[in-house]
Amino acid sequence: MILIVALNPALDITHEVPSVDWSGVNRPTAVHARPGGKGLNVARTLRAIGDEVLVLGLAGGVTGQSVQSALGELGIPAALTPIRAETRRTFAVVDGARGGTALFNEPGPAVEADEYAGFCVTYKSALAGSAAVVLSGSLPQALPAQTYAELVGVATAAGVPVVLDAHGAALVRGAAAGPAVVKPNLAELEAIAGRSLTAPDGGADRGAVARAAAGLRASGPEAVVVSLGADGLLAITPAGSWLAAPPADVTGNPTGAGDAVTAGLVHGLVAGQPWAERLRHAVALGTASAAAPVAGEFRQADYTGLLPRVTVRRSEAS
Amino acid sequence: MILIVALNPALDITHEVPSVDWSGVNRPTAVHARPGGKGLNVARTLRAIGDEVLVLGLAGGVTGQSVQSALGELGIPAALTPIRAETRRTFAVVDGARGGTALFNEPGPAVEADEYAGFCVTYKSALAGSAAVVLSGSLPQALPAQTYAELVGVATAAGVPVVLDAHGAALVRGAAAGPAVVKPNLAELEAIAGRSLTAPDGGADRGAVARAAAGLRASGPEAVVVSLGADGLLAITPAGSWLAAPPADVTGNPTGAGDAVTAGLVHGLVAGQPWAERLRHAVALGTASAAAPVAGEFRQADYTGLLPRVTVRRSEAS
Repeated sequence: MILIVALNPALDITHEVPSVDWSGVNRPTAVHARPGGKGLNVARTLRAIGDEVLVLGLAGGVTGQSVQSALGELGIPAALTPIRAETRRTFAVVDGARGGTALFNEPGPAVEADEYAGFCVTYKSALAGSAAVVLSGSLPQALPAQTYAELVGVATAAGVPVVLDAHGAALVRGAAAGPAVVKPNLAELEAIAGRSLTAPDGGADRGAVARAAAGLRASGPEAVVVSLGADGLLAITPAGSWLAAPPADVTGNPTGAGDAVTAGLVHGLVAGQPWAERLRHAVALGTASAAAPVAGEFRQADYTGLLPRVTVRRSEAS
Repeated sequence: MILIVALNPALDITHEVPSVDWSGVNRPTAVHARPGGKGLNVARTLRAIGDEVLVLGLAGGVTGQSVQSALGELGIPAALTPIRAETRRTFAVVDGARGGTALFNEPGPAVEADEYAGFCVTYKSALAGSAAVVLSGSLPQALPAQTYAELVGVATAAGVPVVLDAHGAALVRGAAAGPAVVKPNLAELEAIAGRSLTAPDGGADRGAVARAAAGLRASGPEAVVVSLGADGLLAITPAGSWLAAPPADVTGNPTGAGDAVTAGLVHGLVAGQPWAERLRHAVALGTASAAAPVAGEFRQADYTGLLPRVTVRRSEAS
């Protein structure tokens, strides 16, 4: 069983509007409300490829109730610790005329010390039955940047490997606590490296990315996997450095694709796959998710069809 | 006690964003969630000027729970009939850089026949203690356009006068059922008149408005009050035709101003004010609400300060 920690889950509300009037009244033709946040996207993808999961985290107010009941309807086991403040919402406005999407992310609830302590009790007891832990997404306000580092430490002490997908100080400190894998994207790696890793053509400067990833790996994690969007993954692992890229003719919406990559990485970790295989599955899942309109969803045929088309090779920059 | 019927209430969610990226990710600096919909705005305004109210209507799902608990926190008595479908949300994005607001209104829940029948039982029993009824706002999908007409008929038969603020077929049929007052705005009157009532300068053509209002009055209501935005109110009443206008130097956000006008009209009706006084209070409330940033709210000092500055005169076009 894979433990997914979602400390800042969300109710994701999507309004589809044929042609948005950005200074007037709009009547959406379709409204979707579903549980969201990076951790829940990872959980959905893992369920879709047949893994057993348990979602832990924090939920409060009627929005938290919505998240819990929707997880139940999706068949995703969850044991969310109740909090007094209201779980956050995200709003996405899909503009049919322009094809663009505007996203509005609420910051998330204040969490009291006793509530977080209650979560930690549940977390420690659930570790006993877990093959791996995924720590993914933003921290709610009032939880310190050290939070993920502490949760990495507890899991590692219990012998359970951790995949961490975070940003900023939570990523830096979490990485230093020694997780099995950290998975920044290019912008997150640039932010903690403090320098641009972009080539003059606008794509990733792979040499610079590899050096920054190696620097991050030196701080503690066993492996660093950088997601580069349509350029695929660059991985610095105990089995060497790798580049894994999707076929060039596949494009789509990158929202949620990184979460599918995280799901692929933890799936391969638990299955004991060699790194080249883990990366192949992660790229195929991420690319299939990018081709689907909703974060956390993908077509199985896209996934299996992409597997043989993913290019995995050792990185020259390692 | 004034009975307010809110068949399609909403949870109004507002995101304040310093400078909106309409094709990217935004992090609102302030998030507000409050009960909304035209009926609830009327109820808030009536409470603020000291009237006793009872809100009836339909509420479902966790969003309905949010509306009910927020009404409780505001001290507004409500007895909402539970429905199985989810109460709607509205989502407003306030763009700090441009000063504009984009509004996204969900269509509202499906209502089952047994649920509406349950509401009707509550409505009939509450009429016994009511001095007036306000029917305001859109109907949820699945309720027929005849709905307001039926509710007008039940109240009128019980000797309780009705103020109706609706649009389209619900307005036409409701007006024909003989309410005390109907309050269309210019666009609503144009829609049911089937012709433009706008002058070449872009303002209301008062002669044409008066003729259309008189035509609407001939269909059943005792009085027709047309709200003309910054031009004030044009009223065709049993006591003659009137124009009531705010001072020219007051501007603001018209959202919710029409609901404050409705509150002023029902307040004056219950208080037995002569029509000129009713209109003066309605214009002052509407204008004070337009000057406030949030629908259903206003500053008492704005209201009382505006009262002597409202111009009320008999309409030449009558």
